[in-house]
Amino acid sequence: MQEQETHALSMQGVRRLPYYLKYLKDLQGEGIQHVPAAAIAGSLGIYEVQVRKDLAAVSSHPGKPRVGFSVDGLIADIEHFLGYDSANTAALVGVGHLGTALISYGGFADYGLDIAAAFDRDPERIGRCVHGCEVYPMEKLGAVCAEKRLMIGIIATPAEEAQGVCDQLVAAGVRAIWNFAHVKLRVPEGVLVQNEDMAVSFALLSSRLAQALRDAKTE
Amino acid sequence: MQEQETHALSMQGVRRLPYYLKYLKDLQGEGIQHVPAAAIAGSLGIYEVQVRKDLAAVSSHPGKPRVGFSVDGLIADIEHFLGYDSANTAALVGVGHLGTALISYGGFADYGLDIAAAFDRDPERIGRCVHGCEVYPMEKLGAVCAEKRLMIGIIATPAEEAQGVCDQLVAAGVRAIWNFAHVKLRVPEGVLVQNEDMAVSFALLSSRLAQALRDAKTE
Repeated sequence: MQEQETHALSMQGVRRLPYYLKYLKDLQGEGIQHVPAAAIAGSLGIYEVQVRKDLAAVSSHPGKPRVGFSVDGLIADIEHFLGYDSANTAALVGVGHLGTALISYGGFADYGLDIAAAFDRDPERIGRCVHGCEVYPMEKLGAVCAEKRLMIGIIATPAEEAQGVCDQLVAAGVRAIWNFAHVKLRVPEGVLVQNEDMAVSFALLSSRLAQALRDAKTE
Repeated sequence: MQEQETHALSMQGVRRLPYYLKYLKDLQGEGIQHVPAAAIAGSLGIYEVQVRKDLAAVSSHPGKPRVGFSVDGLIADIEHFLGYDSANTAALVGVGHLGTALISYGGFADYGLDIAAAFDRDPERIGRCVHGCEVYPMEKLGAVCAEKRLMIGIIATPAEEAQGVCDQLVAAGVRAIWNFAHVKLRVPEGVLVQNEDMAVSFALLSSRLAQALRDAKTE
């Protein structure tokens, strides 16, 4: 039951989690132990029914009448949901423009996410430090992933190298792949793949705009 | 009715459109005028019911019994849906690592999408040609967008510059914004915004992995 609810959290819901987390940590800092859903809703400008729905999806600590939710309990549950305790650090392969942009991206910290190591086969890039992230040669992939316990692999290589890199990441113990290459990857059962297909995203916006322009014409 | 159906096409459906388009254009090249849904399904390895659903969502040309779909009609409808005739070219602002990665991205052509001009305020970048795309100074935004009739703006600037750039794009006549900056944009009514939030995408994968690891433990 809990699992189903967990899966039910929408993209929008995931987007709200860092705000809950920040608010709850502020309360924790002030020594507050319980908070009612209405107070969370009021402070963050979210409908109370939405707050209850979001928290039910990520937390096994139900709020108690008149007392509210346990602040410590909610923080632990949200961090657990986001994988802070197991799945929040990644290895990135391919330190070209896209890889560098990802390493430099400021938004990951809000979700406790971290690119802990980068890899490339280009000797020019190896040994450099990009925004605090060291670039290792591909030969060190297995050792570094094992040492840092990295379970997420980010593929930012050209499409023709992506499958080979994916195989190396899986062999290095990675259990989830975030794929930016414009190619369909083959992975063993049990390994998650999330494709970030920029073309599909662009095409969606283009079709939405085309629709809006048609609507405007017929109005 | 048609509008609702058009909106109903899923991300997966949009992803399939280039395959339909390529197949249909091959038929057109061979002089074939009609094709049954079963033939499309068989050639592309997609269930026939799915083919019918996808095509109903984008096309106002229903297939006829025994004859099938009009090849020319379907091509026109899919291209129209994807905005080939109005909304397929974009202006990109911010030619840093992310902007350069987007301009260099090979996947857009499959959907008939094109980044037709790039803009930056850095004199070092202005005048350069990145993968066939000229980099203009910000002052030329209005003139170039008008001349090339660009209605999509891609924001690949740092977060603190994004709102100002967005305002300039809207003033230049852009009707849809594809925003990569980690910031919420204000736009006038009628302007579409699609946020590409890398952090939310990474957080989703991380939470899916955390869930999979929990499931594996309890098995």
